[in-house]
Amino acid sequence: MAAKLQTAVLGATGYSGLELTRLLLRHPRLEKPVLLGRPDAGHANVNLVDVFPILSGNGKYPLQPLSWPELKRQGVKLLFLATPHEISRSLAPEAMTEGLRVIDLSGAWRLKRQQNRAIYNFQDADSVSAAQLTERAVYGLPELNREQIPDAALVANPGCYATSVILALAPLLHAGIVDRERGIISDSKSGVSGAGKGPNSRTHFVSVADNLSAYSVFGHRHVGEMLEQLNLEDRELIFTPHLLPIPRGILSTVYVYLNSAMKAAEVESCFRNFYSGRRWVRVFATPQLPQIQFSLYTNNCDLGFCLAEDGRRLVLVSCVDNLLKGAAGQAVQNMNLMYGWNEEEGLL
Amino acid sequence: MAAKLQTAVLGATGYSGLELTRLLLRHPRLEKPVLLGRPDAGHANVNLVDVFPILSGNGKYPLQPLSWPELKRQGVKLLFLATPHEISRSLAPEAMTEGLRVIDLSGAWRLKRQQNRAIYNFQDADSVSAAQLTERAVYGLPELNREQIPDAALVANPGCYATSVILALAPLLHAGIVDRERGIISDSKSGVSGAGKGPNSRTHFVSVADNLSAYSVFGHRHVGEMLEQLNLEDRELIFTPHLLPIPRGILSTVYVYLNSAMKAAEVESCFRNFYSGRRWVRVFATPQLPQIQFSLYTNNCDLGFCLAEDGRRLVLVSCVDNLLKGAAGQAVQNMNLMYGWNEEEGLL
Amino acid sequence: MAAKLQTAVLGATGYSGLELTRLLLRHPRLEKPVLLGRPDAGHANVNLVDVFPILSGNGKYPLQPLSWPELKRQGVKLLFLATPHEISRSLAPEAMTEGLRVIDLSGAWRLKRQQNRAIYNFQDADSVSAAQLTERAVYGLPELNREQIPDAALVANPGCYATSVILALAPLLHAGIVDRERGIISDSKSGVSGAGKGPNSRTHFVSVADNLSAYSVFGHRHVGEMLEQLNLEDRELIFTPHLLPIPRGILSTVYVYLNSAMKAAEVESCFRNFYSGRRWVRVFATPQLPQIQFSLYTNNCDLGFCLAEDGRRLVLVSCVDNLLKGAAGQAVQNMNLMYGWNEEEGLL
Amino acid sequence: MAAKLQTAVLGATGYSGLELTRLLLRHPRLEKPVLLGRPDAGHANVNLVDVFPILSGNGKYPLQPLSWPELKRQGVKLLFLATPHEISRSLAPEAMTEGLRVIDLSGAWRLKRQQNRAIYNFQDADSVSAAQLTERAVYGLPELNREQIPDAALVANPGCYATSVILALAPLLHAGIVDRERGIISDSKSGVSGAGKGPNSRTHFVSVADNLSAYSVFGHRHVGEMLEQLNLEDRELIFTPHLLPIPRGILSTVYVYLNSAMKAAEVESCFRNFYSGRRWVRVFATPQLPQIQFSLYTNNCDLGFCLAEDGRRLVLVSCVDNLLKGAAGQAVQNMNLMYGWNEEEGLL
Repeated sequence: MAAKLQTAVLGATGYSGLELTRLLLRHPRLEKPVLLGRPDAGHANVNLVDVFPILSGNGKYPLQPLSWPELKRQGVKLLFLATPHEISRSLAPEAMTEGLRVIDLSGAWRLKRQQNRAIYNFQDADSVSAAQLTERAVYGLPELNREQIPDAALVANPGCYATSVILALAPLLHAGIVDRERGIISDSKSGVSGAGKGPNSRTHFVSVADNLSAYSVFGHRHVGEMLEQLNLEDRELIFTPHLLPIPRGILSTVYVYLNSAMKAAEVESCFRNFYSGRRWVRVFATPQLPQIQFSLYTNNCDLGFCLAEDGRRLVLVSCVDNLLKGAAGQAVQNMNLMYGWNEEEGLL
Repeated sequence: MAAKLQTAVLGATGYSGLELTRLLLRHPRLEKPVLLGRPDAGHANVNLVDVFPILSGNGKYPLQPLSWPELKRQGVKLLFLATPHEISRSLAPEAMTEGLRVIDLSGAWRLKRQQNRAIYNFQDADSVSAAQLTERAVYGLPELNREQIPDAALVANPGCYATSVILALAPLLHAGIVDRERGIISDSKSGVSGAGKGPNSRTHFVSVADNLSAYSVFGHRHVGEMLEQLNLEDRELIFTPHLLPIPRGILSTVYVYLNSAMKAAEVESCFRNFYSGRRWVRVFATPQLPQIQFSLYTNNCDLGFCLAEDGRRLVLVSCVDNLLKGAAGQAVQNMNLMYGWNEEEGLL
Repeated sequence: MAAKLQTAVLGATGYSGLELTRLLLRHPRLEKPVLLGRPDAGHANVNLVDVFPILSGNGKYPLQPLSWPELKRQGVKLLFLATPHEISRSLAPEAMTEGLRVIDLSGAWRLKRQQNRAIYNFQDADSVSAAQLTERAVYGLPELNREQIPDAALVANPGCYATSVILALAPLLHAGIVDRERGIISDSKSGVSGAGKGPNSRTHFVSVADNLSAYSVFGHRHVGEMLEQLNLEDRELIFTPHLLPIPRGILSTVYVYLNSAMKAAEVESCFRNFYSGRRWVRVFATPQLPQIQFSLYTNNCDLGFCLAEDGRRLVLVSCVDNLLKGAAGQAVQNMNLMYGWNEEEGLL
Repeated sequence: MAAKLQTAVLGATGYSGLELTRLLLRHPRLEKPVLLGRPDAGHANVNLVDVFPILSGNGKYPLQPLSWPELKRQGVKLLFLATPHEISRSLAPEAMTEGLRVIDLSGAWRLKRQQNRAIYNFQDADSVSAAQLTERAVYGLPELNREQIPDAALVANPGCYATSVILALAPLLHAGIVDRERGIISDSKSGVSGAGKGPNSRTHFVSVADNLSAYSVFGHRHVGEMLEQLNLEDRELIFTPHLLPIPRGILSTVYVYLNSAMKAAEVESCFRNFYSGRRWVRVFATPQLPQIQFSLYTNNCDLGFCLAEDGRRLVLVSCVDNLLKGAAGQAVQNMNLMYGWNEEEGLL
């Protein structure tokens, strides 16, 4: 068997970073990953077990300070950034200069169009090198961009909401059967881990429990990804995220009108053909619909639909575990493709 | 002060019936209500405290068997039916024959159009008397049908989902500013008490917790009410209900396109004008949106909205407590109007 | 009718303070309460609606800065402190000097014994005036200290856990039937609002949901109150609090051994006699036990028990809503007694 | 590599049976298990995917009717019974007559003492063969009975509550340091999956959410197992189960008094020594305590403790996932021991 790959993770103290670390620890092709403390958070010299007692009893997980020479000495070839987008924005170029490949889980490198990036307010907005790197970055949604990922030096891992919405719509838009003039709507609902580990009044248990709330209507950062990957105009899509009283999981209910009346079997074929051979998309047969529970703790994106009797009005339901297919699991899937391994490895 | 009204409740053993009973017990205009056991459920001779231990220590709540002479003897003037629609369908005509006024919380008498009633599969579908009674029944949404309620002999209390959707859309449709050709969508989410007290695999805690699921897409009974009260065609509306992992509360996210670009202040005025003087609708000022928690344990319907920069795409958010404004509270509000009392009485 | 009482609340921005404010707003004997911003939190000049959008649409709730002359001018006679204990510790004496009566919801004035106060680390630990005020303060558990409350200038409102544990044990200890040598154990479980409104990693939704954890074992601040009110030695009691994945409510499972074998009916009589005429304690008849749901949104303390066949091993179950009987409701009950009103007023 | 073992599962339609099936499907030493429909439930000819849509897309899971000749033809050597105890009671002897080894997840064969079995009301209570089989059955708690399991023909897999309580107490009782005269108390809390998949009013979402309740006080079936495995008298133990508003997980808070004052380090050593080499018990260092979340989706039993300053009063906290270490995971662990495999296999 080939030598195992040495990876490093920066940001294991967040929800996605922890999930990623746990996946990497049991991935058969990998050495034990190097864990790096976030420079901004003073997490160097921390032991991850102190942050996540759930790791107790399985040995030590010390975080080491980020040092490029040290990473080189340790033989690290691939760096995962599970960091806020500002940090990814400054560290990814450095890492690439050092010869590392990078999978970035933030929004730093996902967007090609300037108007979509505005919402992030990047400090380096006018920098040429940032613009060049943005061009080179591959949007790491394997079901769409399978061809570019193997050679990518920088993979921009998709947002969790974006994954659920793009995978629901891509087959239909690709087939050209959607009446885009009437508009597309995604009403999406996410568990609280999607809002990050930082405590605030929005993530306080009492604020979330027994509740549901919409937020960031017409102003969520993931919209840009959806527009770019689906080739939509801003006016063609409404995306409304909601905060669910559950720890994890996303369900997007997506509404489209078809150009002409179709049969349910035709719609189902459209999905099955598009995702043929795609291990991590699971298409449900009508009338069964995905539920959040079905995709939890898996790397699946589950897709189902209901077609009105008129054959025109179509309701799609798309579910992902926001920490797996919506973040860490998809990052591992991207790594598998980057190194020519089976897409399933380390994800079963 | 005038003599107090004597009421009776059939179906206090369900969630809405219990909530109604508790409201009636503390309503200042009422005698202690007579509680009737459902004939089909053998609940006669049961004590309500045994069904709902939450009532413990506040005295006895015996259910008596339904008997028209006995109700007459007790001076009952108004009967609440918190029963399945089949039972309401047979009992409401009997009660009216006996001279009682009726507020029915089921779907038995809400629908005027035959094609909308088909989904209920009424046994008496072809009966002339049922047709006549259907004509006389008043749809008890006070914010819309305030004029007819005071004289109604039979009030059909609206469905919980329908209340949240109709109140969100009525002002805009009334103003004629909605582009109905592009379609209207209500993505609605409800707590589990809306599914009734009967235990089944769908309402099992393990099925609901940590989950979200869509159901009855293009086939929910409340759609007919929405279409009739809003004067919409079936093809103009998509309604998708979802089951939330919370005990009570409904949030509907409603999507419409406006005929021409408007300003947020104009939309807000549209709502404020329409609901001027309507005590139980609470309009939120942009950018604040209602959340389920805000309306729980109140009779409010909370309304808020977000308008896209283009002034055309409009997202409405509507919240009700499904057991209060969506059922028992609205029934009390209807009673207040039927007897000329202040709309707030017994609901604060 | 007598003139209405003018009250003020300091700390309406916390969970207990909000609950208290809502109770005071609808209390028939009161003027609209003056709402004061916490000096440490810069909440003066804030509108309470901005902190709690649930209050939207019911008018304005401006907080005014604390000023004794201004309170005097407004005719305030009674001040509620819903503040951290350090603030209560400094403000209560000032308020009393100004001639106000005070009901304090913190732990500042509950403890008579120095060793029990140590855990609070009061800055004024050695002050004579603080010691004198401590002596004058009345522990505001009306079921035990009904006699002293009417004349109290300073009422120390009990802790939520303490209320549930003391009320469960007082009848049995008073009757002298408990084998104290074998030890008394209270295994208590609380909803998250008991941990306060401040967001932190412990109260983050993801930390609490799908979880249960014990905390502060052998080190919780409420133990001192239990020992003092029940005349127990530290070694005679074990109290273990747990954090439940619910917003509110406390259930304490309390274990005692009886000196000699008794019958269930005798135990029940012991409770019923002790709480005869006490409106806000509800004793359940065996074999029915209280559940958290039964006492939510009420001012009840619900008590029930199971006795082993040997007549010696006794399991008590005690439930309160931590924000009502465990805080704001009990404060209103204390006010009712202080002013000679019916104990129920404003609490139904 | 040796030939893979052929197993069969009866009862895959329950929560434990499903969890077991999923573990067996990915166990490296096993053929795909034969799935059998419960004779009483008419589940033969059902496809498991229809019962658990979470299995969708991973192929078919047809249930076959139970037939001993057919099982022999298929080469089945080991039968798992995830069935109600009455069914296990009748099928286990049949299976053993047919030469199969059996791991039974019910309470049918766990109890040696007649007085402890009474609560189950077995139909065959007086049968000689049942008595003999009871004698031969091995209580499958590997941390205690590791020696007998490899040769067992019938393993009685422990109850979920019993696992959490016995593992917390065994080291201390074995060391003889517990003051048994003062009594031992286990206050245990379980998620709803422990109550089974059958819908009823107790498991309805609305009954469980925002709630906590004690049940079966002094009358739970698992007490007998605790008494027998720990050699305790009935009067020495109080066990109180509670129903938590979470899908899965158990936390037991166990109270003991020590014979003489000890140090925390000594107590910790007692646990570490007793469980040395036991892979699936995780001892937490003081002051860290287990939480339910830490053991979910693992086969761990997590143990921690707090010792009072007096060195006598000891609070133990024990957590298991009721469907894994409390049921299906432990069954796999037992299988691993029965066939001489590593205790970890199929459980990581």
